[in-house]
Amino acid sequence: MSKFIVIEGLEGAGKSSAIRYVTDWLNRHGITDIECTREPGGTPLAEKMRALVKEVHEERLTVEAELLLLYAARVQLVENRIKPALARGAWVVGDRHDLSSQAYQGGGRGISAALIDGIKQAVLGDFKPDLTLYLDIDPALGLTRARHRGALDRIEQEQLPFFERTRERYLSLAGGDPSICIIDAGKTPDEVKQAIEAALDHYLCIPG
Amino acid sequence: MSKFIVIEGLEGAGKSSAIRYVTDWLNRHGITDIECTREPGGTPLAEKMRALVKEVHEERLTVEAELLLLYAARVQLVENRIKPALARGAWVVGDRHDLSSQAYQGGGRGISAALIDGIKQAVLGDFKPDLTLYLDIDPALGLTRARHRGALDRIEQEQLPFFERTRERYLSLAGGDPSICIIDAGKTPDEVKQAIEAALDHYLCIPG
Repeated sequence: MSKFIVIEGLEGAGKSSAIRYVTDWLNRHGITDIECTREPGGTPLAEKMRALVKEVHEERLTVEAELLLLYAARVQLVENRIKPALARGAWVVGDRHDLSSQAYQGGGRGISAALIDGIKQAVLGDFKPDLTLYLDIDPALGLTRARHRGALDRIEQEQLPFFERTRERYLSLAGGDPSICIIDAGKTPDEVKQAIEAALDHYLCIPG
Repeated sequence: MSKFIVIEGLEGAGKSSAIRYVTDWLNRHGITDIECTREPGGTPLAEKMRALVKEVHEERLTVEAELLLLYAARVQLVENRIKPALARGAWVVGDRHDLSSQAYQGGGRGISAALIDGIKQAVLGDFKPDLTLYLDIDPALGLTRARHRGALDRIEQEQLPFFERTRERYLSLAGGDPSICIIDAGKTPDEVKQAIEAALDHYLCIPG
């Protein structure tokens, strides 16, 4: 039975490496039909919406429009790519999904959780990942890493308190949902890799 | 006191002429600071969202993403253009506004009115036009007119029953809202002009 696994976390938490650890683990367990997606984006139309959200514009993008664009991109990705992939038996590994909107727009921007949940329910219904690995990192450390990587996009240009609120919301949401596993991303790369593999062993129980 | 006046109606109902009648009427009443807007669109970012909604794409745009894009464009227009214009004392004449989403997406596409209202309330609150002139036209006649005009966009390519459901919803919403005036757009241009001017005389009560 194919599954939808999502990697979540702040900028600089190490999501790209984590995705590689997950796909390597799946390959070792004989799973080779894997679709990797990213959010916002992942389909031609969703990538255009991503550009509206991520690029720095002269016109201010309102927080409400940002939220609606993120969900518009998400519903395109879920309906046109994730659901068809799962239906044909492929596994899907997502770089971000709905939890990002709840944490960044709910926690960081301060949009009401009820409003976000309402939109989510309305457009996605009960669709959700089978497993989410949340890479928890101190925002100051994550931002330092992200800045080393190069130019920051519109959201990455926010200040530290925004990311602290986002992390707090991530942790509180992860604490209440057994399908979300918290990984300490402040440890060494080897320790993070081992923690991710242990989580996959535990949650997915696929015979090696 | 400046006001927000909206022209609504199906393709081919004569919205462009109606907008000219309204701005001419306002000019004759000494009102010259007028901003004309169109939806979806009307700001640089909202126009990019308009393109996503109106253009024909290879990827299917889901009805949910279409709705979210329309509201994202609307909140950009309202916050960045309409509200600032009204605040400085300008009048605003809109080519479409929220009623279009309720009629096309609610009636035409069949999205639940409660969902549309929920999104609207969440992102626009109680903001609404002071007066809406709904140009009512038989969809078959309107489409014939629109087709004479040239190439049809993605929404205009829908079939007759879609526009019949949209018109029905327009009429039912207009019937329940005293700020919406129904104009019979099947009459001659002169009769439509007179009906619009009579409506403005009645609703706006500005001394000539």
